[in-house]
Amino acid sequence: MESKKIGEGNQPLICTPLVGKEQEDILRELENVLQKQPDLIEWRADFFAEIANTDQVLSIAQKIKGRAGDTPIIFTIRSVREGGQPISLTDREVLNLIKAVCRNTGIEYVDYELSYPEESFKELRHISAESNTKIIASYHNFNFTPKMEILINKIKDAQNLKADVAKIAVMAESLQDVLNVLDVTLEAKNTLRIPLISMAMGEYGSITRMIGGVFGSAVTFAVGESSSAPGQIPIDELKSVLSIIQKSVNQK
Amino acid sequence: MESKKIGEGNQPLICTPLVGKEQEDILRELENVLQKQPDLIEWRADFFAEIANTDQVLSIAQKIKGRAGDTPIIFTIRSVREGGQPISLTDREVLNLIKAVCRNTGIEYVDYELSYPEESFKELRHISAESNTKIIASYHNFNFTPKMEILINKIKDAQNLKADVAKIAVMAESLQDVLNVLDVTLEAKNTLRIPLISMAMGEYGSITRMIGGVFGSAVTFAVGESSSAPGQIPIDELKSVLSIIQKSVNQK
Repeated sequence: MESKKIGEGNQPLICTPLVGKEQEDILRELENVLQKQPDLIEWRADFFAEIANTDQVLSIAQKIKGRAGDTPIIFTIRSVREGGQPISLTDREVLNLIKAVCRNTGIEYVDYELSYPEESFKELRHISAESNTKIIASYHNFNFTPKMEILINKIKDAQNLKADVAKIAVMAESLQDVLNVLDVTLEAKNTLRIPLISMAMGEYGSITRMIGGVFGSAVTFAVGESSSAPGQIPIDELKSVLSIIQKSVNQK
Repeated sequence: MESKKIGEGNQPLICTPLVGKEQEDILRELENVLQKQPDLIEWRADFFAEIANTDQVLSIAQKIKGRAGDTPIIFTIRSVREGGQPISLTDREVLNLIKAVCRNTGIEYVDYELSYPEESFKELRHISAESNTKIIASYHNFNFTPKMEILINKIKDAQNLKADVAKIAVMAESLQDVLNVLDVTLEAKNTLRIPLISMAMGEYGSITRMIGGVFGSAVTFAVGESSSAPGQIPIDELKSVLSIIQKSVNQK
């Protein structure tokens, strides 16, 4: 299978998360997920019980990368304030761990939240450039969907911070929120130089996981074994919907 | 199978068109389409070669209704100016034919375009009320998507004319047009007393045939045997997408 890059191709890539707590769970989950052939795999390391043990994290990251072969990996420590699991690491320790992952694992993408200081971004950009690791600069809001101009500014921030990919994931409290996220995605597609990953979460938002790609979202997250955010649907179902949408929007 | 009514239930009804030219084609098409179990069937009588022969039209309409059983039928003469086939009937003859269908066939719905004079609408409303036939007041634009306020006004016109259902079908020239149609649909759902059928046509618009129901469109048109408008997708594919969307937007 050829390796896919975020922002290339005319269909959104499907990414499935790994959310195991122990090494054993994570590697078993990886085997199950690989059978479903996602385009990308995200390791949500904030779920890992031993995240404070850098050697353990690097060892698992290397195993995941070795086993996943050409399937690119995203390494993510989602902060509690953006919907992640509680962990004992300070912001500085999080940054150091991500830098260590860049240097030692061959993992292709690291997620870093836009809420971190600009200086930290510069530091990560410097290290990740050396290892050729791409940065996904992300913004999550599990409570509501901010105004469209705020979302657009988040995406512009990602580009200004020299991230390789921007990501926004917000809770849709209404169908109007869903339309606004699609609208922002379309605007970003027409004005941004870097790819955008966008989605609305929750039951209203779940349709953005299916049709977001049409409006310019480069990646959609699906359930391989376990969900990592509200509104995700099983990868098999997502694949079948995406294939029908793809055929349908390409008809003449 | 229980008979479904436009605007009832929490999923959009799937309607497949009949577009045969001769009685033989139409009735054969009907058999094929019935096997795919649409919720509604639209007879596009403007495709019928003998449309000027009222007895013939009524005879076929009766046969369709008899054969379709509980599946409701929409009788439609789409005008050339709104994307229909060229026919020899005058506007007055069209109205008389639709009135005859109301009186003599038991068909549940007749489509009547909003571009006809208000007086004609009143005349049809009077007759169709006697036969308990529902009127779908429709607006089609195969060239472009008008501004949102124009579309909203079309829908309000339908309600003011005492139609039972409003329908707008417009050509999407861009993804922004698609968002606008969904936006109008959502607004109509929140403010209108009668159900709305909405769709954007063309390759961009084809996704509205899948997700329009989430935003409030009461009916989506699918290909049973032959397409009647750009962007329609096969009924089997539409059913599978709708079932995934339905499950997904109802998850907690």
